Amino acid sequence: MRIARFSIDGNVAFGVVEEAAAPDGGSVLDIIKGHPFAEFERSGQKIPLDKVRLLPPVLPNKVVAIGRNYAEHARELGNEVPDVPVAFFKPSTSVVGPGDAIAYPSFSQEVHHEAELAVVIGRMCREVPRERARDVILGYTCANDVTARDVQRREQQWARAKGFDTSCPLGPWVETDVEPSDLAIMCTVNGEQRQLGRTSEMARSVEDLIVHITEAMTLLPGDVILTGTPAGVGPLNVGDEVAVTIEGIGTLTNKVIKRG
Amino acid sequence: MRIARFSIDGNVAFGVVEEAAAPDGGSVLDIIKGHPFAEFERSGQKIPLDKVRLLPPVLPNKVVAIGRNYAEHARELGNEVPDVPVAFFKPSTSVVGPGDAIAYPSFSQEVHHEAELAVVIGRMCREVPRERARDVILGYTCANDVTARDVQRREQQWARAKGFDTSCPLGPWVETDVEPSDLAIMCTVNGEQRQLGRTSEMARSVEDLIVHITEAMTLLPGDVILTGTPAGVGPLNVGDEVAVTIEGIGTLTNKVIKRG
Repeated sequence: MRIARFSIDGNVAFGVVEEAAAPDGGSVLDIIKGHPFAEFERSGQKIPLDKVRLLPPVLPNKVVAIGRNYAEHARELGNEVPDVPVAFFKPSTSVVGPGDAIAYPSFSQEVHHEAELAVVIGRMCREVPRERARDVILGYTCANDVTARDVQRREQQWARAKGFDTSCPLGPWVETDVEPSDLAIMCTVNGEQRQLGRTSEMARSVEDLIVHITEAMTLLPGDVILTGTPAGVGPLNVGDEVAVTIEGIGTLTNKVIKRG
Repeated sequence: MRIARFSIDGNVAFGVVEEAAAPDGGSVLDIIKGHPFAEFERSGQKIPLDKVRLLPPVLPNKVVAIGRNYAEHARELGNEVPDVPVAFFKPSTSVVGPGDAIAYPSFSQEVHHEAELAVVIGRMCREVPRERARDVILGYTCANDVTARDVQRREQQWARAKGFDTSCPLGPWVETDVEPSDLAIMCTVNGEQRQLGRTSEMARSVEDLIVHITEAMTLLPGDVILTGTPAGVGPLNVGDEVAVTIEGIGTLTNKVIKRG
């Protein structure tokens, strides 16, 4: 099931995507009563997907991201996969949705794309045992861990390099039924392929990361885990259109603009 | 003015602290209508301070913390004050209030106290010019940047070392009228002095930090900036009572317990 978050006439709601269900063959959203973090009913009230503005599929309280989780990417930046996962935060103020702009920050001259599988947490949890890790997941979406690479090199902690406004595009929706362990993940810039990998290359699995993170901290419904990026990261420029596609989930597209 | 956040009979409210205003000479809280992030009225409804449970004085969306901002503390851990401030996040799930427990995390054997001046942001802002920095501040409170020092040494980014549950005590209230540039800041453990410094020793001032952070990201009302800790950091053990006192603000006291 694909659950989107959207605004229409100033109201925000969640809806289940029904493909090819409109009279013209397009997709529709069946509006959910309430929110998707508990059992929910579909209202039966349907809106064509192309009539709404999709929002980030969740509003995370926090995004916990993992660095250097694909060996080939770690090597391309002169690093190795570390003994302990590299965990850092991206703040809620960095989150934007599908179709939203990535605003090129004023304090960087080298902004990179990083296509990542995003795990959306479905329930409050901490100290999750490995065999229960799947139970706390609502589903999966696409993410771009946009990074000011020059700032990342200069600053020991990555709050500014990876936490600036618009540096965390998420979307287009949460897919609840996909098996995450071996999905193709791709990034294109202006239609040209830049990154291509498979989630099976991850040094630590989704389950491992949930154990590692919740050993320290509580995750809340709607919190997001970014699972690292495959090789092929590279620069984004103002005017570029960057797209992250994950097999079985969908495509997250964002345009890079000058920060206003 | 001192603004506290508290719960009484299951309701959460803000109130202005009035010292020695109770018939018995104790302090009272004059309940605020609404919240303190805009012009507000006092309701005139007063409650003795010792009848309520104080909560964290704000519920930050994010806490942006600064490392190595006091030269003597940087040196005691074998570091120097860096050319660029070290900025990192503590998540909202790490925040607790005055009197709340610090739960010793299971993945560390070396948890340290770090007394810090906390700046509470009063309005949404980004790219704040230095001369406007004071305008975005609601006030100041005490913070303890509780740190799993052994984990901090092992893990390159500090999300787990400084972001675990209960690692960010804040309180007891927001003082709106204090001049922050030269205040005594002290930490005691079980009544014994461990840290003592003055905010005038900070390598970067409060204004400098607001400029640095908002160059990259939007701050929201209730967001908090931690400004670094003076020399004297050291271990906390289960059973300890740790107190952070800042001149003109007050004292934040927390007890260390075994994580349940």
